[in-house]
This record gives sequence, structure tokens and C-alpha cells, in this order.
Amino acid sequence: MRALTVEPKKQGSATVEEVPEPPVEDGPVLVETLAVGVCGTDLEILSGQYGWAPPGRDRLVLGHESIGRVQEAPAGSGLAPGDLVVGIVRRPDPVPCPNCAVGEWDFCRNGKYTERGIKEHDGYCSERYRITPEYAVKVDPSLGSLGVLLEPTSVVAKAWEQAERIGGRARFEPKVAVVTGAGPIGLLAALLGVQRGLEVHVFDQVTSGPKPELVAALGAHYHTGPIEEAVKEPDVVVECTGVGSLVFDAMEHLGPGGVVVLTGVSSGGRSIDVDAGLLNRAMVLENEAVVGSVNANRRHYEQAAEALAKADRSWLEGLVSRRVPLEDWQAALERQPDDVKVVIEVAK
Amino acid sequence: MRALTVEPKKQGSATVEEVPEPPVEDGPVLVETLAVGVCGTDLEILSGQYGWAPPGRDRLVLGHESIGRVQEAPAGSGLAPGDLVVGIVRRPDPVPCPNCAVGEWDFCRNGKYTERGIKEHDGYCSERYRITPEYAVKVDPSLGSLGVLLEPTSVVAKAWEQAERIGGRARFEPKVAVVTGAGPIGLLAALLGVQRGLEVHVFDQVTSGPKPELVAALGAHYHTGPIEEAVKEPDVVVECTGVGSLVFDAMEHLGPGGVVVLTGVSSGGRSIDVDAGLLNRAMVLENEAVVGSVNANRRHYEQAAEALAKADRSWLEGLVSRRVPLEDWQAALERQPDDVKVVIEVAK
Repeated sequence: MRALTVEPKKQGSATVEEVPEPPVEDGPVLVETLAVGVCGTDLEILSGQYGWAPPGRDRLVLGHESIGRVQEAPAGSGLAPGDLVVGIVRRPDPVPCPNCAVGEWDFCRNGKYTERGIKEHDGYCSERYRITPEYAVKVDPSLGSLGVLLEPTSVVAKAWEQAERIGGRARFEPKVAVVTGAGPIGLLAALLGVQRGLEVHVFDQVTSGPKPELVAALGAHYHTGPIEEAVKEPDVVVECTGVGSLVFDAMEHLGPGGVVVLTGVSSGGRSIDVDAGLLNRAMVLENEAVVGSVNANRRHYEQAAEALAKADRSWLEGLVSRRVPLEDWQAALERQPDDVKVVIEVAK
Repeated sequence: MRALTVEPKKQGSATVEEVPEPPVEDGPVLVETLAVGVCGTDLEILSGQYGWAPPGRDRLVLGHESIGRVQEAPAGSGLAPGDLVVGIVRRPDPVPCPNCAVGEWDFCRNGKYTERGIKEHDGYCSERYRITPEYAVKVDPSLGSLGVLLEPTSVVAKAWEQAERIGGRARFEPKVAVVTGAGPIGLLAALLGVQRGLEVHVFDQVTSGPKPELVAALGAHYHTGPIEEAVKEPDVVVECTGVGSLVFDAMEHLGPGGVVVLTGVSSGGRSIDVDAGLLNRAMVLENEAVVGSVNANRRHYEQAAEALAKADRSWLEGLVSRRVPLEDWQAALERQPDDVKVVIEVAK
């Protein structure tokens, strides 16, 4: 079968090639891949900065955002041929840490997990893959290939769960949310905020194109200026850029008892001047919380599946800027100005 | 009766003077004040930087850390003459905000609360005061005047509750805690950490005197160097200094899934260089949380009363560096190098 593979840590090594059929050890559920989404982590792997091949091999099948159709599933697995499924990315070590042991691999304590398409386990950008039922999440059939949005939505579902669990350390009835960044994560964070009945404000830099339109179509508010000029004391900030100065901006303008959830992975190396005393004082006197959130466990995938099922299909369709056939995978990786989410179509 | 009063925002205005008996409007419980603790907020008020007199008056009775003995209490109030009680500091506005309405005035959303001895309501540094039963917390009779430690302990009980509620957003079984600062708040935070069965490490600058001894007597570990040289990846950090650089130090060396609770109120105006991108990245990839914590509600006072009741009395006694009679109040305010907590004895 064909697959998009890469030699991790080696720039320019990606190619579509013939690979063996998926190994039976990967699980009894056989899935035909319909499409795979491209995200920043893929670009990091393709540029040779990140990624690990499976033990004993040089190359890794890429792809961790996927949608596929079940071809074979054992009786009693809860899955049947024809079901649309998304494979979960992270998998605990066979000797799990205490958090992994209770299914909270997103809070893994020893780092010994694998991640499909990223770390030591082939990803989903092949014509078929195998999986165990516990790591396959069913999506609403009416979503079709839009189910490819489930994985990024699971990250956002976790971020919202963090905001609510942490906000809920005291009485917490959030009304106003800020989302920084209108990429796929930011837009999906806005969707989940609107679904919660919140007044949502999204901040990004572009003044035209699909991002402002997608925000407006949600009934949310789009801004390009500083947070404090548009929103007073939000209860929740979902930070989706990883830009250091925005992270501190978000903390400075949070409302009392509020929560900032950080989801953007930034690179270091650029220092900024911070009045740490003033920031600390504001956080203490207003009971403010900041939390980093990464990855997602099965509960978050299921929350994400519910969120997508009730979302407007044409709005979700608007997130998919381009669909590129597998053989043209290179085109999928060249970012174009108005790209939100680019998808590689694996099934013909 | 005699009281220690001050004209807020006017340096050098404090004096012990005769004031009227406590007004009946303050509540049906009459309490004889035994002792009042002095803390940083009192020093801020005395130096003219902070504090508000009751409406229509120039002067405020000082004192918010107290221990007293009930002289009169109505039947059915749960209090009886002779009981040792501590008055809660904060009181919601008669038209409470939604958080105050459920007793979470420590999370007040509109700032319209009063605070005894600080903001628009006379404090406890008078020979007698009146209070409503809901704001009087009974302490174990065997504590005697050590009950004066209840108010600072309530602040620490809230900090620990924050750590546990936020840590508990996922599986959370903390083992190692760091406390920065070995003043009264830091030492009481260490006490509550040890009572939870944690390995507790306290960091301060002094190398001799009562602080290292008090930490050792708890079975905790005392350090003067950088956090990272002594402790690897603590699960909880209770920051009790408000020093900006320490706040960021605590964030940098937190373990995965861990929580930093900020309790120290710093002043602003000193910027430090922060690699915000790197800090953000670490917080995201390790699911780390930072939360500010201020004040305490009745639940925290009750948790604090339990914590003090089971603490070693001689250890608590060690926190009280000096007891100064009311007439010598000025001596109580002059900080001496080995001072931990200085107490003004109000009852003769």
C-alpha cells in the first residue's frame, strides 16, 4: 500500500512509497484511511526538527490527524465495517505510569508513550492502518471526511475541560472568553466556546480572508487590536499562538477568578521584559490561574466527537482550505496565505 | 475601652486610645480580645500606604489576626461564653456578588467587601469586639492564645486547597512540595504540607536562627540555594515571598502536571528578563498550572482550625517570636532579625 513516510530528523526525506500492509500487532480493527490533516507538528517533522521512527527502523509513516472507514472489526468491539473512526494519537507504554494506567496519558508522568505519526509508531497517512478498539473513536457518519477535524478538536476539548475544572475550584459561571489566534485550534476553541453559550472574542492579525468570516459565522467577535481595547476582564482565555508576549498579555487582562489556558507550543530564545512583581500581584489579588494543556485522552476525543456532531457542517467545511490528493502531498505542505486546515486525501 | 487605631493613608498616625464600646450592629456575640498578630498588611497600613476607615470616620481600629474569648453569645449560635474564637476578616457587601452569595467571598467579583482592620470596618485590636456567629470560628481550647495563628493558617489552607483542586483536574498524588519563604505563611504552608504526608522543602535566605530550626522540627528540609539544586520536579510549589524572580523560578522547576500557588503580594516596578516562549512551552508540554490565591472563606478557617488543633503546640509556640503588651505596640512593629510572628497582647 502507499504511505507518506519520512526519515525523522532528516530534512527533505519525505516521500510517498510502497510500504507493507499494516502489522497485525497494531490491532484487530482494520481501517481504510480517507484523509489526513496537516498541522504544525507535521511541518516540524518534515523540516527535520522532530519525530522518531519506530525502534529498529529509519522511516516513520507520517500523519496523526485522520479520518478513516472501518473495514474489519471483531465482534463486541463496538465497531463495525463502514463506521467512520479517528485513531487516537498517543499510546501509553506497556508498563504505564500511574496517570497512563487510568487512561490519562495526556498527563503522562514518565514520557514513555508512543505517538502515531510522531513518536516511534507509524501514523495514519497510509492507505490502511490497524488499531485496537480502545484507540479508535467513532464519529457521526454525517460528518464524512470532516471527521479529520476530530484530533485538533480533542486538543481544544481538553483545553476547555482544563478551563472549567480549574475555574470550578470556586463558583464559576464564565460569560466572556477570549481566543488568541485564528488558526484551526483557535477557530475550534471559538466553536466550543460558542457551544458553551459564551460571548467569544477571537484575536488574530489578518484583516481579510476566511478567518474573520469564520469567526463572524459563529456569532463570535473578531479583533485585530490589543485585547484590552476590545474586551474587559474575560473569564477564560484560550491562548493558541504560543507567542510569548501574547501569553503575558492574556494573563494581564484576565478577569478575577479567571483561567488562561495555554495551548500553543512556542520555541524559546526570545526574552521579553516582564514586570514579574506586578503580574504576580495581579494573579494573587484576583485569584487568577494559568495552565498549560497538551494532547488529549479518550474522554476528550469523545467530547470532541460530540462537539463536531452538533456543529454546522458548512462552517466546518470552511475550516478545510484545500484537499490535496496523496500523490500531490508536497502541495499540501506549502502554506498559502489563507490556509486554515489543509487535508491530504488518502483514499482515491 | 482601649484600642490601637490608625488614620489610614497617613503615616505615623497610629496610637492607642480610648474608643467607644463595640457597636451592637456588629453582632450579638461579644468577644474579649486576647491577642492580635502583626503582619505585612498591618505594616503597610501603619506606613500610610493602605487601609480605609469606616464610612464617615477618619480612624480605623487595626488588627485582623486575632484570638479572643466569648463573653456573650445568643442561645443557638453555636457559641458559648468562654469559647476561644477567631473573627473572620472579610465580609461581603449586603448586596453580595454571586460568589459572596455562596460564601466564597475570597473570590469576590465586585470588590465591594469590607475587611476588619483593613477596609471600612474596625479590626480586632481593641479590648472587646462584637461579631455575628457566622464570622466567628471556634478554635481548640488547648491552643490558648496560639489561636492567633488561625488567620494566617486560613490563607495557607486556601492555598493548599487551590493546589489540590487544580492538581485534581487529572489524577494527582503529590509527593514533593516546595515552599519559598520561611516567614509565618511559609512555615505554616510547610506545616500543612507535612500534615498531608508530603516531603516538604523550604527555601529562604537566612542560615541560622529559628527558621531553619522550625523547618527541621517539622521533619521538612531547609535550603538556602537555588530550587533546582535541591529538589527535582516538585508536584506543588507554595510561593510565599512575592519576589518576581522566585515566582518564575518556581514555574521553571515544577514537575509535570504540577501546581504553583502564589500567595505573596509583591509590589511592581522591577522588570526582569523572561524567556516567555520557553516558559510557555514548558507549561504547555508538561500541563503545568500557576494560580494566585488570596484571602480565605469560612471553609478555609475551619480547615485551618483542624490543622492547628493537631499541630505540635511547642512548634506553634516557636512561631511566636515575641509577645508585646498593647501599651508597647510600637515595639511590636519594629521588625527584629529573627522575628517570625509578633503578637500584641490585648487582654491584661
